Amino acid sequence: VRGEPFRPGEFELIARHFRPLAAKYPGALDLSDDAALIDVRPGWRLVATADALIAGVHFLAGDPPSDIARKMLRVNLSDLAAMGAEPLAYLMTLALPSDTNEAWIAAFAEGLAADQAQFAIALAGGDTVATVGPLALSLTALGQVEPGSELRRNAGRAGDVVLVSGTLGDAALGLRVCRGELAGLAPEQQASLVQRYRIPEPRLALGRALVRGRLARAALDVSDGLLADLGHICETSGLGAVVEAARLPLSPAARAALAAAPELIGDALGGGDDYELLFTAEEGALLAIRAAAVAGGVPVTAIGRLTAAPGIRVLDAEGRPVETGRAGWAHF
Amino acid sequence: VRGEPFRPGEFELIARHFRPLAAKYPGALDLSDDAALIDVRPGWRLVATADALIAGVHFLAGDPPSDIARKMLRVNLSDLAAMGAEPLAYLMTLALPSDTNEAWIAAFAEGLAADQAQFAIALAGGDTVATVGPLALSLTALGQVEPGSELRRNAGRAGDVVLVSGTLGDAALGLRVCRGELAGLAPEQQASLVQRYRIPEPRLALGRALVRGRLARAALDVSDGLLADLGHICETSGLGAVVEAARLPLSPAARAALAAAPELIGDALGGGDDYELLFTAEEGALLAIRAAAVAGGVPVTAIGRLTAAPGIRVLDAEGRPVETGRAGWAHF
Repeated sequence: VRGEPFRPGEFELIARHFRPLAAKYPGALDLSDDAALIDVRPGWRLVATADALIAGVHFLAGDPPSDIARKMLRVNLSDLAAMGAEPLAYLMTLALPSDTNEAWIAAFAEGLAADQAQFAIALAGGDTVATVGPLALSLTALGQVEPGSELRRNAGRAGDVVLVSGTLGDAALGLRVCRGELAGLAPEQQASLVQRYRIPEPRLALGRALVRGRLARAALDVSDGLLADLGHICETSGLGAVVEAARLPLSPAARAALAAAPELIGDALGGGDDYELLFTAEEGALLAIRAAAVAGGVPVTAIGRLTAAPGIRVLDAEGRPVETGRAGWAHF
Repeated sequence: VRGEPFRPGEFELIARHFRPLAAKYPGALDLSDDAALIDVRPGWRLVATADALIAGVHFLAGDPPSDIARKMLRVNLSDLAAMGAEPLAYLMTLALPSDTNEAWIAAFAEGLAADQAQFAIALAGGDTVATVGPLALSLTALGQVEPGSELRRNAGRAGDVVLVSGTLGDAALGLRVCRGELAGLAPEQQASLVQRYRIPEPRLALGRALVRGRLARAALDVSDGLLADLGHICETSGLGAVVEAARLPLSPAARAALAAAPELIGDALGGGDDYELLFTAEEGALLAIRAAAVAGGVPVTAIGRLTAAPGIRVLDAEGRPVETGRAGWAHF
């Protein structure tokens, strides 16, 4: 059973909105062929990552289509950033419910167009099909990196400083706002948290600066939550870590939320979807990392250290252990 | 909202079945990092293609999971074959309903393992998420080709011979069998048609032989149906075509079906999902193409010619026009 167009002309309509997204990428072949041609810079290596997002699971069907599109692209760009790769092109498959209308598709494509311009990436190919279920998106992002310079999770060493870009917990707090929680926050603070949840910032410039300067050892992006993702670094590196809770970088909105409800520190420790870079570096690299942070346009904060002893300990300002339970430890 | 594991341990279970599929591909990094590293042969060019399949639309939820997996991989391999590319690796995203059990996942992975061995391709990355809807699969296949040698749709010239590999209409007839039609056919004929529908044969070796010998002009794979796909070649090449219906290559099972119901010729002209290579070539290349067909392990049949006049005409054995209506012309 091939997926039939759900309405006559629906797929021509999609082509009308999507083909312009491929117009500047010659290897996309105007989306008219069976596959795209991708030229990797001579001597460089291709980096490829894929993620799926499902309505009702990863976003709400009623979310702005432009936001859904940008999040879909950005979570994959964040994976490229975590490896220190430069974006090249992406392929996307969309499974659209039968009630999808042209305004939705147009807004979705506009979101992609805005982010393509911002992050220097283009649509190279994909597939659009009908579904009897919820909107299902899958995106494969392709990038390139100098071979041997790519950032890996398993490259941490005991004694490394643990650093994180930007601020933590905003996305989890933004999701709370979407659910009607945190009503005591000022409207503009609520809006800034929701924005961080809906539209993550892939730290591509920082990732590139870390690679060019060979400044980072282990690295990944915070998608599962700080403790879970630091756990990935520790497990693959065969190490443990100490995190100083008082040093976790928090946005003004998150500080306001935590001032009213201190237990929300759990959102900074365990909340996912921040898409900040979490990486480790030797002490001697810190000065150069400050410069890389400026080049990357995002602050970087040292929050702890890797340890030879396994396990992750979170300490408060007085050096006492913070009970974290299993928050953020569940692998996904 | 990140997709939560739908049962504790479900995603460790998936890792257990999928990680072995990546074991032989070093750039997959054991599926432990944010992205995969793909090395394209120096001087060659990456080829990338993506397709989505949805339960209840492209296959039935109750179909054998091994068949679903192999079809998902093979429809993408067919796109690589149509460009004349060599397979490298693939990324796959799965959105799994909450009632997916381990036996299903194990059988799905076994199907992939079998085809990986057959087609020299490996899993390099992907994503597994929960869905509230039907099983949704998306796969991006990566291959490589000598730059400038890749086969394109738009390279046909007036007077080119139109050729097709294998046989046409089997998949559409196989779908009829699945629906309970064609009950008059012998059981082994029914089974062979269903097999053709469920598990297409990507013509990778033929595609490579055509590229190496520079034997084909325009090419693609028959996924929408012969007339629709020939239409793609004609439109992008700015030409028309004449097809001789009596020369369409038919399997013994299809011949038996058409003997009982001649109107089923429409399945050979318009039925999709055969995934044979449809290509054009100059008359002088035909002898070398016969040799390429032997190298490719599949017969190749000349079925018509490209014409300067636009439109596609189908002629019967006496040279009279066959009325095809819009069958197979609907773009998808």
